[in-house]
Amino acid sequence: MVVVMKLTAKPEEIAAVKQRLEEAGFQAHFIHGVKRLVIGAVGDRRVIDSLGLVALPGVEKVVPIMKPYKLVSREVKGENSLIKVKDAVFGGRELVVIAGPCAVESREQLFAAAQSVAAAGAKVLRGGAFKPRTSPYSFQGLGEKGLQLLAEAAQLTGLAVVSEVLDEPSLEMALEYVDIVQVGARNMQNFRLLQSVGRCNKPVLLKRGFSATIDEWLMAAEYILSEGNEQVILCERGIRTFETATRNTLDLSAVSLVKELSHLPVIADPSHATGNSRLVIPMSKAAVAAGADGLLVEVHPDPARALCDGPQSLSTEDFQLMMEELQGIATAMGRDL
Amino acid sequence: MVVVMKLTAKPEEIAAVKQRLEEAGFQAHFIHGVKRLVIGAVGDRRVIDSLGLVALPGVEKVVPIMKPYKLVSREVKGENSLIKVKDAVFGGRELVVIAGPCAVESREQLFAAAQSVAAAGAKVLRGGAFKPRTSPYSFQGLGEKGLQLLAEAAQLTGLAVVSEVLDEPSLEMALEYVDIVQVGARNMQNFRLLQSVGRCNKPVLLKRGFSATIDEWLMAAEYILSEGNEQVILCERGIRTFETATRNTLDLSAVSLVKELSHLPVIADPSHATGNSRLVIPMSKAAVAAGADGLLVEVHPDPARALCDGPQSLSTEDFQLMMEELQGIATAMGRDL
Amino acid sequence: MVVVMKLTAKPEEIAAVKQRLEEAGFQAHFIHGVKRLVIGAVGDRRVIDSLGLVALPGVEKVVPIMKPYKLVSREVKGENSLIKVKDAVFGGRELVVIAGPCAVESREQLFAAAQSVAAAGAKVLRGGAFKPRTSPYSFQGLGEKGLQLLAEAAQLTGLAVVSEVLDEPSLEMALEYVDIVQVGARNMQNFRLLQSVGRCNKPVLLKRGFSATIDEWLMAAEYILSEGNEQVILCERGIRTFETATRNTLDLSAVSLVKELSHLPVIADPSHATGNSRLVIPMSKAAVAAGADGLLVEVHPDPARALCDGPQSLSTEDFQLMMEELQGIATAMGRDL
Amino acid sequence: MVVVMKLTAKPEEIAAVKQRLEEAGFQAHFIHGVKRLVIGAVGDRRVIDSLGLVALPGVEKVVPIMKPYKLVSREVKGENSLIKVKDAVFGGRELVVIAGPCAVESREQLFAAAQSVAAAGAKVLRGGAFKPRTSPYSFQGLGEKGLQLLAEAAQLTGLAVVSEVLDEPSLEMALEYVDIVQVGARNMQNFRLLQSVGRCNKPVLLKRGFSATIDEWLMAAEYILSEGNEQVILCERGIRTFETATRNTLDLSAVSLVKELSHLPVIADPSHATGNSRLVIPMSKAAVAAGADGLLVEVHPDPARALCDGPQSLSTEDFQLMMEELQGIATAMGRDL
Repeated sequence: MVVVMKLTAKPEEIAAVKQRLEEAGFQAHFIHGVKRLVIGAVGDRRVIDSLGLVALPGVEKVVPIMKPYKLVSREVKGENSLIKVKDAVFGGRELVVIAGPCAVESREQLFAAAQSVAAAGAKVLRGGAFKPRTSPYSFQGLGEKGLQLLAEAAQLTGLAVVSEVLDEPSLEMALEYVDIVQVGARNMQNFRLLQSVGRCNKPVLLKRGFSATIDEWLMAAEYILSEGNEQVILCERGIRTFETATRNTLDLSAVSLVKELSHLPVIADPSHATGNSRLVIPMSKAAVAAGADGLLVEVHPDPARALCDGPQSLSTEDFQLMMEELQGIATAMGRDL
Repeated sequence: MVVVMKLTAKPEEIAAVKQRLEEAGFQAHFIHGVKRLVIGAVGDRRVIDSLGLVALPGVEKVVPIMKPYKLVSREVKGENSLIKVKDAVFGGRELVVIAGPCAVESREQLFAAAQSVAAAGAKVLRGGAFKPRTSPYSFQGLGEKGLQLLAEAAQLTGLAVVSEVLDEPSLEMALEYVDIVQVGARNMQNFRLLQSVGRCNKPVLLKRGFSATIDEWLMAAEYILSEGNEQVILCERGIRTFETATRNTLDLSAVSLVKELSHLPVIADPSHATGNSRLVIPMSKAAVAAGADGLLVEVHPDPARALCDGPQSLSTEDFQLMMEELQGIATAMGRDL
Repeated sequence: MVVVMKLTAKPEEIAAVKQRLEEAGFQAHFIHGVKRLVIGAVGDRRVIDSLGLVALPGVEKVVPIMKPYKLVSREVKGENSLIKVKDAVFGGRELVVIAGPCAVESREQLFAAAQSVAAAGAKVLRGGAFKPRTSPYSFQGLGEKGLQLLAEAAQLTGLAVVSEVLDEPSLEMALEYVDIVQVGARNMQNFRLLQSVGRCNKPVLLKRGFSATIDEWLMAAEYILSEGNEQVILCERGIRTFETATRNTLDLSAVSLVKELSHLPVIADPSHATGNSRLVIPMSKAAVAAGADGLLVEVHPDPARALCDGPQSLSTEDFQLMMEELQGIATAMGRDL
Repeated sequence: MVVVMKLTAKPEEIAAVKQRLEEAGFQAHFIHGVKRLVIGAVGDRRVIDSLGLVALPGVEKVVPIMKPYKLVSREVKGENSLIKVKDAVFGGRELVVIAGPCAVESREQLFAAAQSVAAAGAKVLRGGAFKPRTSPYSFQGLGEKGLQLLAEAAQLTGLAVVSEVLDEPSLEMALEYVDIVQVGARNMQNFRLLQSVGRCNKPVLLKRGFSATIDEWLMAAEYILSEGNEQVILCERGIRTFETATRNTLDLSAVSLVKELSHLPVIADPSHATGNSRLVIPMSKAAVAAGADGLLVEVHPDPARALCDGPQSLSTEDFQLMMEELQGIATAMGRDL
């Protein structure tokens, strides 16, 4: 950390900063600039926030140098984490595709989706049983009934299952039925939920909050790892920007950058990112070319009748087409699909 | 709602849209444009999302016309909602100031803060017992012990108390001790929590998510009202933008606009918005001039020793000064402080 | 366009809106909603702004339905525009790569760059002679001397040349030396400059402003086409968002979407978008997979000695590598490289 | 500046960084952290960008410590700059109000506006003669005729005049007629134009670009001052964010912060910021309460007939009301209106 003193800082103010740093176990190095003093402080990055340095008289600003996360970092673990779910492995050579409807609506809808995505090569079935909806008047999901249907569909097709959890009760319920628990974008900084999934022994699919920086996203993963669960799959799903032509802006640089910063697998969700089914296939290709370890795609047997997110759902035919078109890109990237 | 058909839409596609609308109880009005058909559809705004129109063949886009919220709207209730908490009333002529430390740290710290903010004219004491922190390594709050201290400080000073809740268990605990429960910015779309506070019988302070649009914020309030709790106080606390010179960008237009759109009281939190104690006083004045019904300000007896958010906390002396400087603005706005 | 009237609109206010619309040549269709009147208006999209409808009493809001652009639209011209520059064609099967240094610094630097990018398969040489720099104290470019060097390098290598122009004088000068004139991101809404390049008879590379919506970007192109120059190549180069880990956020959905909305060729610039040379290769691949018609990449023989944008420049070795790695993606996309 | 070396940096890489720094006249201070080396470098902030350090092997990142601007900074000049225009002074105790139509449309319109704003207490008349419009099909202004009308209106009413310039020719023309030249938001980083107005001897009203950071805005002012013109009035006019309920988001924290960072006067433009005439009065009050030195407001004798920006223009009656309502806030802030 670097502490920049004001031009007008007095000697006793400088001494107070030095003392505060040393109390906290930091070593203070004085760098006398052309006009002002800068103090380089060496110590534990994680306690900076509690030092209160910025509020001390004479301090202009504090510039953190190191990253705030540790367990998720490539500096701590150089090789890729491999996360095995049934016969799929996230983070290795394989490109894992997760597909299924936004919400579980009925046995017919789910099973039609499950069978077609399995046939087309998906390894994991997605489907929402608990739906966080902007409006209280929108369909909120089937709850446990939805989870049961997912488990049945999984048994039938051999797919693994991922579903979103919202709180402690829905997590406990989901753990009986699913292979991966999903923390949604709106809950990425629901720290209670992060701690809860950090204590369970199943893989966690952690979506990036639509306004979360990469650092905040990795810190959310750090919460989970710090509770003991190292099986975290990160999922980029678009960020909120000024652009309104797409629902969000898919940030594929984040995929490449997070692969560099962290050992965790990273997948992309072009359906939520774009909100537009016509952009799902090109953005799936782009995500794979950017280095994503997999994809999460919404597929519905009848998108125009979907109770949720129909505009962004692929039909089963389009999904089949997507898987075919991805093949060439996957090969060019040295990945198996 | 308006459904814009593609240039290339076929008669049977148009008929299918008409049928879908009519099935859902909408009346369809055809407007034949210079080149394309536009369909005006009259019916219940709240079911638009589940119609799946955008996914129908031949549809270019769907433009909603009406607001998605109802109970929170001024169209439903013209006069201001007044929310009474001890001897303060939010939404009327009075300007209600909420003040106190970011986190409850100790009896000494809290009581020093409480006594000084009460003496300076605050009506409500704030203090975090459960702290949502970006880093798992930061101070997470004293929990129930913090709530007990808040209740004691309230009794001593006559202040009302507000504190943040994170989930069902912390809500249940808080309801025994506090006068207002706060839903924080990161939980503004934690719909489970919104439903829970919607079923309690105490006022709710609902912070705007730092990336929430005004519509989403009002929809979050709609969740609470739709569960039966009409006592919602909205709090603007800055939005995330590209600007990094301040922690967030305080959106004071939102204060004025929400006062126009909704009957609920709106207050502003310049401490979290700016992250900079030097900007708290000017932004407090600006918020009052923009029409805010009150303020939420962080005050700490020793900001440089604060375990949380020291850089943005006013000292007790600065808070006293703020209250004095606000007096003239309040008078000019016809408000009592 | 749809005009939404207020709940409280009086009959004479409604009549005034109708009259204003009809004066401007629009047909007004009344749609009586559950509670309020909505007026569908059919006419020339391009005059909406000058109708002043929103300022009329009784009007709540005006919702435009059609796109504001015309000449650039696929609805006007269905097939791709092909733009030929020397022996490269933008917008067809070929993937055209533009490469070279941020700024022309010296004959040695430019010629080294030109020869290596030509050898690796680039078709167009880029190099800045007039540099728009955030700081007045930064290197501002060599001016006409830079243009002369570019022309010499082009002659030597057979490459075409593109260089940025800032105003009328630099445009006139550049037209003598370059094959394509570039309008930079900061000038995307410099409408005088757009009009000037619209009157010249050379292709224009139009970068997206880093805060421009897709509609604004296409309107900027519309300015150029409306002056008679139809040879516009669009270039996505990242948008400004809250994320600071990359310089900008490369918006690849925009590439796919603009290909759908417009007949103009679209390329991507991963160097400026990311500001990070390590992300240039993955983002180049992703751009091609998203459907880009080409790439613009910064290459410098000695990035660490670059007078401008060194951190994002590829070395000549890295560029060679990039071209090799792109081959597989290009083939998978059915493009020639 | 601080140079953070990678964990894996080799001794020769460290030596190369030290050498590069020393060649450029910097002193290098080594700070050995727990795991890695950090180099504090003392020297001229303005040459950092050209050092190319980030591109050197072994370097992880470079963190600038000092502000990039100098002449505009309060550290260089402690007291407020006062800018005198006719009988108004920007930057002192007086609150200067600039008002008038978006565009000069006709003698009748302009004179009606000028007389009423003068009567209500405005000191400067605004009116666009050269209009930068998003669409090539929108009204582009009357050009020199507009400037002549402005000069006549000024003579008649005693008001000073400000009008926007777009390039060298419009600047030269405007200098004959106006008292202040305006650089608009879209041209804030048109560095050629900044240099041109920096060489003229009239005050410059420099609008913040709608996506410019505070640092970039001050750097744009630095361009003007570095050419010799110290008479710069800064104008906050809203920034582009994800919120679409207002046209832009008025950033009043920026007003307070820039007053702290710079000696230049700062005014606010609530008309362009909000795009909504109903928000202009509350945001004007808020801006004054935030410490603005003045306001720029659009006023039109018949907003519903305005050729440009009618929805955000105050009527002359509303402007009169605004001036009355501002009085109390001005007094509370110790300002003369």
